[in-house]
Amino acid sequence: MAESETQTRQEVTDSREAGIYDEDGAVRSSFLASVGAAIADRDVLFLRAHVGGLHPSELGHVLEALQPEQRQALVQLLGEDFNFAALTEVDEAIRLEIVDALPNEQIAEGVQELDSDDAVYILEDLDQEDQEEILAKLPFTERIRLRRSLEYPEESAGRRMQTEFVAVPPFWTIGQTIDYMREDNDLPDRFSQVFVIDPTFHLLGAIDLDRILRTGRSVKVEDIMHETRHAIPATMDQEEAAQIFEQYDLLSAAVVDENERLVGVLTIDDVVDVIQAEAEEDIMRMGGVGDEELSDSVFDISRSRAPWLLVNLLTAFLSASVIGLFDATIEQMVALAVLMPIVASMGGNAATQTMTVTVRAIATRDIDIYNASRVIRRETIIGLLNGMIFAVLIGLVAGLWFHNPHLGGIIAAAMVINMLAAALGGILIPLLLHRFGADPAIASSVFVTMVTDVTGFFAFLGLASWWFGLSH
Amino acid sequence: MAESETQTRQEVTDSREAGIYDEDGAVRSSFLASVGAAIADRDVLFLRAHVGGLHPSELGHVLEALQPEQRQALVQLLGEDFNFAALTEVDEAIRLEIVDALPNEQIAEGVQELDSDDAVYILEDLDQEDQEEILAKLPFTERIRLRRSLEYPEESAGRRMQTEFVAVPPFWTIGQTIDYMREDNDLPDRFSQVFVIDPTFHLLGAIDLDRILRTGRSVKVEDIMHETRHAIPATMDQEEAAQIFEQYDLLSAAVVDENERLVGVLTIDDVVDVIQAEAEEDIMRMGGVGDEELSDSVFDISRSRAPWLLVNLLTAFLSASVIGLFDATIEQMVALAVLMPIVASMGGNAATQTMTVTVRAIATRDIDIYNASRVIRRETIIGLLNGMIFAVLIGLVAGLWFHNPHLGGIIAAAMVINMLAAALGGILIPLLLHRFGADPAIASSVFVTMVTDVTGFFAFLGLASWWFGLSH
Repeated sequence: MAESETQTRQEVTDSREAGIYDEDGAVRSSFLASVGAAIADRDVLFLRAHVGGLHPSELGHVLEALQPEQRQALVQLLGEDFNFAALTEVDEAIRLEIVDALPNEQIAEGVQELDSDDAVYILEDLDQEDQEEILAKLPFTERIRLRRSLEYPEESAGRRMQTEFVAVPPFWTIGQTIDYMREDNDLPDRFSQVFVIDPTFHLLGAIDLDRILRTGRSVKVEDIMHETRHAIPATMDQEEAAQIFEQYDLLSAAVVDENERLVGVLTIDDVVDVIQAEAEEDIMRMGGVGDEELSDSVFDISRSRAPWLLVNLLTAFLSASVIGLFDATIEQMVALAVLMPIVASMGGNAATQTMTVTVRAIATRDIDIYNASRVIRRETIIGLLNGMIFAVLIGLVAGLWFHNPHLGGIIAAAMVINMLAAALGGILIPLLLHRFGADPAIASSVFVTMVTDVTGFFAFLGLASWWFGLSH
Repeated sequence: MAESETQTRQEVTDSREAGIYDEDGAVRSSFLASVGAAIADRDVLFLRAHVGGLHPSELGHVLEALQPEQRQALVQLLGEDFNFAALTEVDEAIRLEIVDALPNEQIAEGVQELDSDDAVYILEDLDQEDQEEILAKLPFTERIRLRRSLEYPEESAGRRMQTEFVAVPPFWTIGQTIDYMREDNDLPDRFSQVFVIDPTFHLLGAIDLDRILRTGRSVKVEDIMHETRHAIPATMDQEEAAQIFEQYDLLSAAVVDENERLVGVLTIDDVVDVIQAEAEEDIMRMGGVGDEELSDSVFDISRSRAPWLLVNLLTAFLSASVIGLFDATIEQMVALAVLMPIVASMGGNAATQTMTVTVRAIATRDIDIYNASRVIRRETIIGLLNGMIFAVLIGLVAGLWFHNPHLGGIIAAAMVINMLAAALGGILIPLLLHRFGADPAIASSVFVTMVTDVTGFFAFLGLASWWFGLSH
């Protein structure tokens, strides 16, 4: 046994050279197998050498790919060599599962090694009691800093900021500033700006590092600093802060409290995560799912998806009751029942297209009350155009299928009406939801398809009943 | 007239103080009105003062908010004060509209002022002939650099890279490096890393600026440089490059050619744009729309949405023909026609939920062949759970509505079957599309609802026909 495993571990070492990922970007199965075997053998030396040195994001991927019991064992076996930064890279459910199993003592030691933004990221999901116990075990300044971050609202810039930063007074020279950075060992791990503050920590300006490097030693800080037009209030929503970063191509920005005092720095890497998360959220909401993660329990997911299904059930009954109005009509001409879902389905699809564009345009602020009427007109014309094209197609096929050109004409007319309804519903519903402060992504789809179902069934069955003189 | 306009312009100056945006993040209508008036009056001084000094992204927003003829006039009136960087911030259609109206001479002068990545961004959409004419008007080194970028494939790192960078030999000291940066005026506008190269431009390593500032003048570059683990091949797809930036929290990365020679630098601000664009693309594809923009023509949009509607039409006819199999059944019991869309609609909704989660998990590489079976099992259980809950609800309502408990039982059974089909279709279809190299986002929705429509109609009508002993 020992021999074959030694061999496997050798292969691991080789695959480490090639990276821990396969061509699809997933963690190599051979690597995972060896890590699993080493965990089973409690082979601490192997784990330290091949897992302990991974980049936090790589370690995070490995943790996600392992079985739950293996995760716990790995963290315990690595002990002090476990980099807590990896916890910021895994799903929330996995993070909580790992952290809950660790003694608060060890968590306190682990988060102490981290930048304050990463520490807050881990601590903010814990319950109040554990949070306090862990904070109590930290050194004084660390404790104060983390507590202040945690006091800002969830998803605010204050939660995402790093409280370690470099700040100098305006009367220093560039030479003094460089010397200070060479001597001070308490600098943040990485930084791309030096802030300029007065003795009460009021933010006066900032200098990018490349500017410092280009400037002579004798120049004064205040002469080359730029006013920080984009200082971010700590209470600002992280999404809004991300939009500022994106618009002005910032690498980092000062975070200030309500008195304009510098309290931290927001960096682009955190902002990139926010941008990703917000885009993700929009996609999930449009698909009718909440912020579920792959690691959530079956029961949690089932429950989180149910409300949306319930709303859909109500709107489906509404559509059914429209059909119910025409039950006598259908009894006399059953072809109507066969064809009616086509009208509804095409309308639903066209409406989803318009809605998708509208929801995105609202999110990226490309649409507002000034150009809304132009966009509405545009979508109406598109609906009419595609409506007419597909009306002809459907009319021909339906007419031939049931040997009834009149039926073809009826379905074509219903089609044009429903495509128009789709265009209007697809744009007006998200705009109205947004107008009344709701997220246009979250509930548009169900209301929009309600409009096209009801319109589609009513137009088709109603026209048929009238044209063929059927009772209903 | 002059008086009232002077007043409006004064208000503009005030609103400039407060920023050009209103609370919703849109360009203030009062600002737009004054700019419009100034354009009509050919008031160059006003435009230079209030528009010429805007940040490129702000100028981009103003251009997008203006009418097409105003845009042209504004660019002409600003002349040399028009910052071409604004063109990288507007929709493609608007960019082309503006650039096409300008003489190549002026474009050449404009792009010369830009970083090479921005210049390439503007030039890459022009036709070959104009591109060549503009390149020919540029200084030699500029021309060579841009031409090299343009030779890399579309959406590659080579297209997005900036060819201006700071590179030093390994045997220099930090002191020499700093002195070089203080003296050389040909440095890029902004940079966050210094690269280390040999005389043939082979990349040896890199040093972050904060590291340089922390290090004594006498230390040698080669002693503190880090090997650039994350050098990016110029031909790498921009999305893949963005994933590397995101995973390793990079601010910039060296771009190398096929001989590992340094050819440029990719910076995080370009990567943020790529991340945004890719997330956008996923959302649009899932909604059945291409890469259309608000500024595209009605005809272009109508045509780009049609193929998706056509596929939906075919699948809708397939569902209709399933219903057609049971036309005699429906004739005998018209309640079936009333209720059948409910089964299909609930299935479609549940399938969309599963599909959304699956498509996202594939995009973020959270799902692969190793854990696919676990996720399939999970989704099946969720489908069964929610299927049973809603089956009971629908069964009760339908049974009471038509005073027929048997009908309630039938629809409940069909519901459970269709929710299972929804779960399996929602996960297997994107996985299979991905497996065969197709983008799982682009076509999943239409196939998935085809599965739930066909299964829903067949299960409900088939069960009813069998249970009530109806002919079909």
